Amino acid sequence: MKKILRVNMTDRTAKFEEVPEKYKLMGGRWLTSSIISDEVDPTCHPLGPNNKLVFAPGIVTGTSAPSSGRISVGGKSPLTGGIKESNAGTATSQMIARLGIKAIIVEGYPEEKGKFWLLKLDKDGAEFLPADEWVGKGLYEVYPVLFDKYGKKVGIISVGVAGEMKMASAGICFNDIDGRPSRYSGRGGLGAVMGSKGLKFIIVDDKGGPGVEIADKEKFNVGRKKLVEAISSHALTKKGGALNTYGTAVLINILSEAGGLPTNNFSSGTFEGAAKISGERIAELCEERGGAGRTGHPCHPGCIIQCSNVYPKPDGTEHVSCIEYESDWAFGANCGIDDLDAIAELIRLCNDYGVDTIEMGGTIAVAMEGGLAEFGDAQKAIELMHEVAKGTPLGRILGNGAAVTGKTLGVVRVPAVKGQNMPAYSPRAIKGIGITYATSTMGADHTAGYTIAPEIAGVGGKVDPLSTEGKVTLSRNFQSTTAYLDATGYCLFIAFPIIDIASGFEGMVESVAGMLGTNWTGDDVGRIGLEIMRMERKFNEGAGLTKVDDRLPEFMKYEPLPPHNQVWDVPDEDLDSLWEF
Amino acid sequence: MKKILRVNMTDRTAKFEEVPEKYKLMGGRWLTSSIISDEVDPTCHPLGPNNKLVFAPGIVTGTSAPSSGRISVGGKSPLTGGIKESNAGTATSQMIARLGIKAIIVEGYPEEKGKFWLLKLDKDGAEFLPADEWVGKGLYEVYPVLFDKYGKKVGIISVGVAGEMKMASAGICFNDIDGRPSRYSGRGGLGAVMGSKGLKFIIVDDKGGPGVEIADKEKFNVGRKKLVEAISSHALTKKGGALNTYGTAVLINILSEAGGLPTNNFSSGTFEGAAKISGERIAELCEERGGAGRTGHPCHPGCIIQCSNVYPKPDGTEHVSCIEYESDWAFGANCGIDDLDAIAELIRLCNDYGVDTIEMGGTIAVAMEGGLAEFGDAQKAIELMHEVAKGTPLGRILGNGAAVTGKTLGVVRVPAVKGQNMPAYSPRAIKGIGITYATSTMGADHTAGYTIAPEIAGVGGKVDPLSTEGKVTLSRNFQSTTAYLDATGYCLFIAFPIIDIASGFEGMVESVAGMLGTNWTGDDVGRIGLEIMRMERKFNEGAGLTKVDDRLPEFMKYEPLPPHNQVWDVPDEDLDSLWEF
Repeated sequence: MKKILRVNMTDRTAKFEEVPEKYKLMGGRWLTSSIISDEVDPTCHPLGPNNKLVFAPGIVTGTSAPSSGRISVGGKSPLTGGIKESNAGTATSQMIARLGIKAIIVEGYPEEKGKFWLLKLDKDGAEFLPADEWVGKGLYEVYPVLFDKYGKKVGIISVGVAGEMKMASAGICFNDIDGRPSRYSGRGGLGAVMGSKGLKFIIVDDKGGPGVEIADKEKFNVGRKKLVEAISSHALTKKGGALNTYGTAVLINILSEAGGLPTNNFSSGTFEGAAKISGERIAELCEERGGAGRTGHPCHPGCIIQCSNVYPKPDGTEHVSCIEYESDWAFGANCGIDDLDAIAELIRLCNDYGVDTIEMGGTIAVAMEGGLAEFGDAQKAIELMHEVAKGTPLGRILGNGAAVTGKTLGVVRVPAVKGQNMPAYSPRAIKGIGITYATSTMGADHTAGYTIAPEIAGVGGKVDPLSTEGKVTLSRNFQSTTAYLDATGYCLFIAFPIIDIASGFEGMVESVAGMLGTNWTGDDVGRIGLEIMRMERKFNEGAGLTKVDDRLPEFMKYEPLPPHNQVWDVPDEDLDSLWEF
Repeated sequence: MKKILRVNMTDRTAKFEEVPEKYKLMGGRWLTSSIISDEVDPTCHPLGPNNKLVFAPGIVTGTSAPSSGRISVGGKSPLTGGIKESNAGTATSQMIARLGIKAIIVEGYPEEKGKFWLLKLDKDGAEFLPADEWVGKGLYEVYPVLFDKYGKKVGIISVGVAGEMKMASAGICFNDIDGRPSRYSGRGGLGAVMGSKGLKFIIVDDKGGPGVEIADKEKFNVGRKKLVEAISSHALTKKGGALNTYGTAVLINILSEAGGLPTNNFSSGTFEGAAKISGERIAELCEERGGAGRTGHPCHPGCIIQCSNVYPKPDGTEHVSCIEYESDWAFGANCGIDDLDAIAELIRLCNDYGVDTIEMGGTIAVAMEGGLAEFGDAQKAIELMHEVAKGTPLGRILGNGAAVTGKTLGVVRVPAVKGQNMPAYSPRAIKGIGITYATSTMGADHTAGYTIAPEIAGVGGKVDPLSTEGKVTLSRNFQSTTAYLDATGYCLFIAFPIIDIASGFEGMVESVAGMLGTNWTGDDVGRIGLEIMRMERKFNEGAGLTKVDDRLPEFMKYEPLPPHNQVWDVPDEDLDSLWEF
């Protein structure tokens, strides 16, 4: 029987609890958002004693279901002021599941400020150890020491210096399959919440754990196989397909050609240097430079898409893993930087300091707009990143994200929704994703409802990105399906094959139903997804968010974006209608 | 016939317009809030092209009505995100009224960033002149030069360096009777709005202007006399009374004794050093040091209360005018500083740089809480203030107010409502003022509904400050009456005599009715006041503010405040009931 682990940072206790009936079928985002909704006053200060932080593996995480090693982290976000779920792919999620833990709830507040703790979890229980010796250090330095100390096979959850300083761009770091501090629940500043609770690390050792229980193994296996087959045959996700060969950065050229690649702080949709920072170029350099460089790298065991990479330095030694599309764009096109080695370094610094690459790239771009550097000045961007780690006043500004940076510098062009900077798709050129940015409970978030699939990639049929026609329904459908997927633990990229291949969708549904022993069908996907959205929306309303927060920034309404020279023209009433269901 | 002057900063034109019928009886806050409600999209960016800034003298301003030289400034606030009216006492308001100008509406947006303009107004019209030569300079340096250039009798409206940098604590400066840059529409960051429009100065010369018209002179005069008599006989406002003798800082000792003087960033209600920074001590030093020092100084011609002062240096030369209670407290008790000379210097720097003393004192206190200085370290506080003028990253943080400073430094104890720092009364020890802070359309603002009158000063009967009983009604009544008074141009301090002396209230009502030629009675005071509140609330709702924004900061609910050791315990439903009318 799975348990919930309740960790109290006031008195440093950790207790296992029965899983309440209402949570039994939940996992991932469904569970984190439910616990936050049930236990956290939405008006609380996100960094105060009454916020909580919840970790939950997905429903099928820890099983042999393909590409399902996601972990959801939930809490009230210091960045958006609303509910937040941010997920990452990591073996640590699988390990938590195999320890029989359905969720870890971190609550309370340390009496002693500036003191940090390490929580060690294994089959015998939980133990607190002082973590002060690692405070103030980069995670690349710390992780190898921890693996030496606690064993090569443990999982490590951590916050970096940004989380220690309670910065709103701080993410929560998980190790990748090779032990790097490189897989992040990046968005929404949950690292600051963990930091505010004085929790620096959770070390997970699943050795001898009970493993996961599958209620209906036959159904599960039938489903799993169909899904594996669909993933393995879709052009985007198959072995040797676009994602596996070039990584997610395969999108750089595509988006720039579509005029939807936000460039120089969302002032253009085309980046001249696109080819130089493209996924194709990354793959080329991995090949050319050899050594550590590789594409087709998995973020967790059991992933069959394997879209990650290890980017090499010119001499072939490892620089960083990985250069994803969003990170590549954030420090590349959005900062006007066309130098992959500089981008790699900026991403490495984010991983080292514990900040979200999307928020941080967006922040540097706003800082450039505010006159702190010229667009394209990679050296200055790197220097700005160092300020974050040093915690200087400038670093404090930047570390608190693009909206705070814009406010502090008097910059009006801040491409954020609910305080969270937009990811790598320009809403003026791709209307559906703009609707997702505006209406998502998470703030501007592409993963919340990835309409890019039909609008750009032609998945599920191709729709015109510049048209507003039918886009509210499109975004709602993507948002609800995504909310469901975020509950399962499956990687969002299975969306491509399950949208295009009917048996893949069936397989996904069956694997989840088999896992839980339910009779859920495809209809339940939408039902559960909408239920999750509604619950999160209710929390946000309780936190004081209104439909006015479901808007894109004003400048997008009066500033046409080249090359299409379109403004944001989805009527407010249409945005509001997304929530009419 | 009065006109509205519409100033467009896009093409630098200034046009006189007829006053629309609906605005004819309005003045001050009533008029600024009406124009902002009618012309500004509440969702616009406060520093973007679609915000506007409105200046309006009160209804009786420019007449012989006593203590009525207030000017209201309105706009969407960069600090609160809602509507803002901030008023000041200055001869310049009387001059605008005497030029026959009912309101000045500043709109549009300069094409060229970083360029600033001076608008010169006289009986012949309006003219734009470049103001770049004064950019980056302190206002104490600039004002004498401008008076030399434009004549000793002009009025000057300006923003300082903080407004140029669009900082959210920037106020709008008016000259006092001796030409000092010392009377501020300080609260809510309207100086940043003026700065965002590239407007550095408005020079007002009323020579040869048409003057003001009084519709029913007899009624006006009867009312005026009754009001003069009441003001002249009330213990607080009469010549030689408390305010005239000691200035507003007479409240320091009283509040500290009541346990309601926020100390060390609202962590105590009693300040050990109270006597050393009290109004009594200011008066003593003005006497002892002689020279420029004086109390009983008026902020504008025609004020018969005269609560301002000129504070001398030890050698008798002028240090600053004036040390008001709020400013004294903000840099004194709230920063743990008990040195009046240091407080005087901090206030002088605020006047020089163009920032609100309340917000800036609150900000320094939050910065102290965040570890940038020790409470009580006056020298460090002065250094922090210098950063603001220099526009360093630290200065940008501080210049954007307490909430941004708290967010940036990860400080949870930020005593702000709607992003605006609380003034000098602790809501845990004085419940009524807490209700005003929470529910006012303006953010935390004592002047919005000064329940201190009965809760502390015994005006209108004495009520127990620690009791919550009847306080919602009390706050609502004060808020509505104040909204009316803010429309008239009368100083808020006439509230003391008109509450306690029935003929004083009658006189106030008659003077306004006489001015306008209406039959308004005492009943219209509440009617109009509630109408203004309702209108402002509607704007705020449009801007996305909800009842969740009508709350005091969470820490006040769980952190008892010495010496009474009370938490904030007014139920949320009671707060919400304030708006049920």
